[in-house]
Amino acid sequence: MAAKDDVQALLFDVFGTVVDWRSSLIDDLGRFGAGKGVKADWAAFADDWRGLYQPAMDEVRTGRRTWTILDVLHRESLDKLLVKYALTGLSEADKDHVNKVWHRLKPWPDTVEGLRRLKSRYIIGTLSNGNVGLLTRMAKHAGLPWDVVLGAETARAYKPLPQAYLASAELLNLAPSQVMLVAAHNGDLAAAAECGLRTAFVARPAEYGPHQKRDFKADRDWDVVTDSFTALAKAMGC
Amino acid sequence: MAAKDDVQALLFDVFGTVVDWRSSLIDDLGRFGAGKGVKADWAAFADDWRGLYQPAMDEVRTGRRTWTILDVLHRESLDKLLVKYALTGLSEADKDHVNKVWHRLKPWPDTVEGLRRLKSRYIIGTLSNGNVGLLTRMAKHAGLPWDVVLGAETARAYKPLPQAYLASAELLNLAPSQVMLVAAHNGDLAAAAECGLRTAFVARPAEYGPHQKRDFKADRDWDVVTDSFTALAKAMGC
Repeated sequence: MAAKDDVQALLFDVFGTVVDWRSSLIDDLGRFGAGKGVKADWAAFADDWRGLYQPAMDEVRTGRRTWTILDVLHRESLDKLLVKYALTGLSEADKDHVNKVWHRLKPWPDTVEGLRRLKSRYIIGTLSNGNVGLLTRMAKHAGLPWDVVLGAETARAYKPLPQAYLASAELLNLAPSQVMLVAAHNGDLAAAAECGLRTAFVARPAEYGPHQKRDFKADRDWDVVTDSFTALAKAMGC
Repeated sequence: MAAKDDVQALLFDVFGTVVDWRSSLIDDLGRFGAGKGVKADWAAFADDWRGLYQPAMDEVRTGRRTWTILDVLHRESLDKLLVKYALTGLSEADKDHVNKVWHRLKPWPDTVEGLRRLKSRYIIGTLSNGNVGLLTRMAKHAGLPWDVVLGAETARAYKPLPQAYLASAELLNLAPSQVMLVAAHNGDLAAAAECGLRTAFVARPAEYGPHQKRDFKADRDWDVVTDSFTALAKAMGC
């Protein structure tokens, strides 16, 4: 594989690629609800919450709204869903706890071992639309051994805007071609490739549970195409 | 100690506080020189290089110069010193290797153990005038287990400008009072305290070798005053 001779850093999409947000939300909110005596269809709730993710970022991407971090967008979406699901009587502390479920997401089974192996040879970091505080706390919670936490907030641009990828490479003093984006989403990889980054597709066919409609496989001949971080590590010589 | 009840993140000054830049430069450049057959007073060279550090950043701090990362400032200072020390015949690759000595600095003996202990309870990260790429590579080289790499570049302001401290807290979604700056320099701590951060002084009386003139001890009653990262860990309940 030619890419591994030039690549100095692997930067990772996080939601869906590194962590299993859907199962994590269903489990975490289910436990929270049980403890509080609050009932809801937590799978539908999780899917609805994620469904509000792209529209919320679009307000910022288009410039209709000034820079706003994902924690704030998540909270605004949550407040809408609490109305939709008629979940009343939650305190501000409860709502804050629920919103921070995105800080408590669980890695896929192969994630941590793969990252540890890749870290021995490459700089590994995030290139996520999550904000720095969210990603830092998630890493501590899940044991993700990042060397560096980068992404939309450090670039002040949400993926797939080019600035998100280019600013992340620049913060590492690297040319785009020395950085590989790892993602479970073909669209993210396409935007990264357009900026000159190398690309690795890791299939996560269970990300959306029964509602998964795309990204079952690579749409293009990415530099690496695989289905786990351990297989990615092997492909990258680790 | 009251501070440890509120503090969620410890952010560290790096040059002098975490790593021993002077001995590292003297050793590294001495080996480089021996390998190349280049002789110089490397201790004086190291001291001169560090002496150009604050004036170079002042050009940026005052706005006379647009934002410029420390790797570039270091290289400009190096080019001046190569003339002053009449070190001719170095290739561009040689000069780049020498400039990146700042990526290869060694930690003080207590650094890594102290950081590992603190990491178990707190977010730990940099709050350094070094750029993100420099700090990330230094961490890999020296085994510094940062959760997050922050500082002048992510704030677009060199310490001791307030923005350097305030933006670092904000990137972690923390109030200034929830962040503790750890530094071997009273001036850095004074600027951080002015912004509302908590403060820990760790004495590094050998930082400047025989030329140390200040910072032998705490000038003020900082939240923690100690002389090693392991003692700091103990003071912070780790």
